Amino acid sequence: MRICILGDGAWGKALAHVARGGGHDVHIWSRANPRIVQVDAFIVAVPAQAVRAVLQQVDVGSAPVIIAAKGIERGSNLLMAQVLRAVAPGATPLVLSGPSFAADVVKGLPTAVTLAADDLVLAQQWAQALSQPMFRIYSTDDIAGVELGGALKNVLAIACGISDGLGFGDSARAALMTRGFAELSRLAVAMGARAPTIMGLSGLGDLMLTASSTQSRNFAFGFKLGRGKCVADALGASTGVVEGAATAVAAVALSKHYKIDMPITHGVHQIVDDGAKVVDVVTALLQRPARIE
Amino acid sequence: MRICILGDGAWGKALAHVARGGGHDVHIWSRANPRIVQVDAFIVAVPAQAVRAVLQQVDVGSAPVIIAAKGIERGSNLLMAQVLRAVAPGATPLVLSGPSFAADVVKGLPTAVTLAADDLVLAQQWAQALSQPMFRIYSTDDIAGVELGGALKNVLAIACGISDGLGFGDSARAALMTRGFAELSRLAVAMGARAPTIMGLSGLGDLMLTASSTQSRNFAFGFKLGRGKCVADALGASTGVVEGAATAVAAVALSKHYKIDMPITHGVHQIVDDGAKVVDVVTALLQRPARIE
Repeated sequence: MRICILGDGAWGKALAHVARGGGHDVHIWSRANPRIVQVDAFIVAVPAQAVRAVLQQVDVGSAPVIIAAKGIERGSNLLMAQVLRAVAPGATPLVLSGPSFAADVVKGLPTAVTLAADDLVLAQQWAQALSQPMFRIYSTDDIAGVELGGALKNVLAIACGISDGLGFGDSARAALMTRGFAELSRLAVAMGARAPTIMGLSGLGDLMLTASSTQSRNFAFGFKLGRGKCVADALGASTGVVEGAATAVAAVALSKHYKIDMPITHGVHQIVDDGAKVVDVVTALLQRPARIE
Repeated sequence: MRICILGDGAWGKALAHVARGGGHDVHIWSRANPRIVQVDAFIVAVPAQAVRAVLQQVDVGSAPVIIAAKGIERGSNLLMAQVLRAVAPGATPLVLSGPSFAADVVKGLPTAVTLAADDLVLAQQWAQALSQPMFRIYSTDDIAGVELGGALKNVLAIACGISDGLGFGDSARAALMTRGFAELSRLAVAMGARAPTIMGLSGLGDLMLTASSTQSRNFAFGFKLGRGKCVADALGASTGVVEGAATAVAAVALSKHYKIDMPITHGVHQIVDDGAKVVDVVTALLQRPARIE
């Protein structure tokens, strides 16, 4: 297959490495290398907030477009497959998501992710085409579930980083991840995701990875906030895009629309977008009554 | 309230610290201090495989007995509340479980756990009596759910330790936790647990804590196996009881009885009890086809 990867960041390069390992002919598109060749599929590996602009520049035609960006578009509150449908109605969206640091994939360490398409057979075909012995791709027809897990966990990873930055323990972070996962699940299911997808690799799995590792930019950003850095300084210190910081406001907008109580997500939004003090948000969260689980 | 804690290990002492913080009169029972006083409740904080013997020594009468041990009894394949019901049919079982390292609790770091009883009102009353500002107790009437989460996650923590010991990355461990949590959930639900309980603090939350921290004895034991130590040496190097090693065989027996496929739990059992080589078990797991999620 000829595959064009949109984006030459760490994740785009890791996916190129995987695709080449499967014997495919891989072309990486970027601003520096904007030539477009005739391909069998596109893989979108740019930051979520840049997906619309890139899709407006590149004519994907009716090809399968595998989205590997995780986030919700600010302003429109659209998921990435919805952005694709809006910009290129003729294309066929697929979504690749799951717990996978680019560095682990490039090193050939075992990794498992999920590929979603509306048509399960198509998802299975592309999962098979791109799978490698150490890069295992599960398949599903639940695009919304895969997208929401991947997008919302980044906001929770910021919360977990804050907890660690404040010097709270592993137990506190585990409780935060659990309560955070509960609110993520509630919103995702209200938006049409299936519960088993959210409990799978792209939801729970990616949360477990992102929310407990300093390798995660979202976690590292939260950690700096917990240590007392202001938002601008913590964002400036990041070596890449902090997807959760951009997604928080969109997640809160969706939670209001669907009437889902998301105290942790809301707390991150208050800190990131509204200038709330970390200590005030954390104190308020800890003073909520512990109720029936 | 007068509360007697059975067991003077780290967890028993941490719970004594919490109960004293709530103004209760706390008595710690141990082999070295076997005097029993008239109390309003017992808290059982000995290793799971020792619960039956301790309950046979101590006459708990009809008091509430809060079980804080996590495991399945070898041979009988009974959960701890079932052991209590067998030994002391007049007692009222409650189960306390969740992500909580004793050290975090003693330091006063934020922690959240779940307390279960058949009677939700009783669970709520004891949750309130024992809650502290930094030790938050949620309540539920799903004893089986709380027990199964706490017991089965220890086996998975061994698997995650093995993955890290082998030098696999964070991505691999996250995938293993996710697939492991899926098999834990399947068995627990088949045994009568409610899915939200398993997705709560005592199931998912405790798995996230135990399966990613070297503070966990189960994880540390698995890590040594992954590094090439034999089972006897890895067990001998532990500073306390490795609950997951004792529970693995019982979990496998239950999975067979309920006809639930649990490849990761089964793999741990093969290594721990049957002398299987780590590399052979891991290779077999990685060669399973990646299917529909």
